[in-house]
Amino acid sequence: MKNAETTVAKLIEVALRRYEMIASGDRVLVAVSGGKDSTALACDLAGKRKWWPVPFELRAIHIATDFCSCCKKSSLREKLESWEIDYVSVDVPVIGRLKPGKKMNCWWCSTQRRSELIRYALAEGFNKIALGHHLDDIVETLLMNMMYKGELSGMKPVVSYDKYPIKIIRPMALCEERQIIDFAAAKGFRSAACTCAFGLDSKRREVRRKIQDLTEGSSLVKRRIFESMRNVNLEYLG
Amino acid sequence: MKNAETTVAKLIEVALRRYEMIASGDRVLVAVSGGKDSTALACDLAGKRKWWPVPFELRAIHIATDFCSCCKKSSLREKLESWEIDYVSVDVPVIGRLKPGKKMNCWWCSTQRRSELIRYALAEGFNKIALGHHLDDIVETLLMNMMYKGELSGMKPVVSYDKYPIKIIRPMALCEERQIIDFAAAKGFRSAACTCAFGLDSKRREVRRKIQDLTEGSSLVKRRIFESMRNVNLEYLG
Repeated sequence: MKNAETTVAKLIEVALRRYEMIASGDRVLVAVSGGKDSTALACDLAGKRKWWPVPFELRAIHIATDFCSCCKKSSLREKLESWEIDYVSVDVPVIGRLKPGKKMNCWWCSTQRRSELIRYALAEGFNKIALGHHLDDIVETLLMNMMYKGELSGMKPVVSYDKYPIKIIRPMALCEERQIIDFAAAKGFRSAACTCAFGLDSKRREVRRKIQDLTEGSSLVKRRIFESMRNVNLEYLG
Repeated sequence: MKNAETTVAKLIEVALRRYEMIASGDRVLVAVSGGKDSTALACDLAGKRKWWPVPFELRAIHIATDFCSCCKKSSLREKLESWEIDYVSVDVPVIGRLKPGKKMNCWWCSTQRRSELIRYALAEGFNKIALGHHLDDIVETLLMNMMYKGELSGMKPVVSYDKYPIKIIRPMALCEERQIIDFAAAKGFRSAACTCAFGLDSKRREVRRKIQDLTEGSSLVKRRIFESMRNVNLEYLG
């Protein structure tokens, strides 16, 4: 499993350089859910902090909702401490903030959590927020937006805001989920994966399976779909 | 089958209006291969010519290659005559023009035929070239370009050239293939379909099947993928 660690570490390194995700003196806030993806990201960034060409700071933040208790926060805290990462947990009453009569949905939940992340980063002087989205998440989002929204859009590895001096970075944009699963297994935190308590991610899981069929499991084809997002030929669209 | 005719006629009408494909006095050259798609297009445009709000001229052109004899040109000529469409056949030695040692391929064949179409249109004063590509062709091209070229690009319903006073129009851009098959059956020219003599379209047929799986046969989902090409959100691509 040594190989799995090297693969993910290398792909994160390529993404950090290719998309110029970290500059000297950056204060990076990594959002950790307790799931394998963001835990792997925190683990890797903790390692890179020691030798990366430019210095950067790192803190982990867990957004604790009022409905999820499955992500084993205590074991998460222990792991982060063992990697010498500062850790903070912030409570967000995602259900509590729902307007009367409104049902829980993905958009509401992610918006509440994202705005809390930004609020914390601004208050504490962090200029980068690192999220654990990987290549499969991004390709799924692209296909879902095409199929269900009729829109060509995905997730960018780096997102800038006009309103805030903050950038979202996705250092695992080039990692496939299967590679992260192997990485997590090698590091021994496979079992901490977190799923939606409302079962609202069924569409995403269905699309994941469909992409598997579409690409016949070919990583090359899936990576080409990913790369197509950087290669938009407007002369042949419209 | 009355319904099939109305459906295709209506979808062509919507496309002609939505994309402003025909202006008053346009001289439209419709490229007919002998296959169901372009035959259906010629048939429908011949009808529309009689009542369309603005006058336009129509001529059909068949690009005859040096390898294909399967498309029953004589029956094509009869059909076009019965619809009162001028018809011309132009020989293009697609194989004959291959450089020594080069193999036949889709790019070469389509480039040779396209340039002959443009050459003829310029010489004869046509300003629009109508092609029989339908919605499934366009969605397939988008997916194939994503999967095999790593590029977001498809086929536009209207293509302008900088170099020539000519536009390519695809009036069947909103028609699904199954609707054209029904239309052709109702009109009695189902059997004239033409396939690649070199069997080079196997990848396209494979992708057609995969799109069927991806969309679970839903026309709505397939049409959303089509519409996504007009709805490019560059803020979420890159």
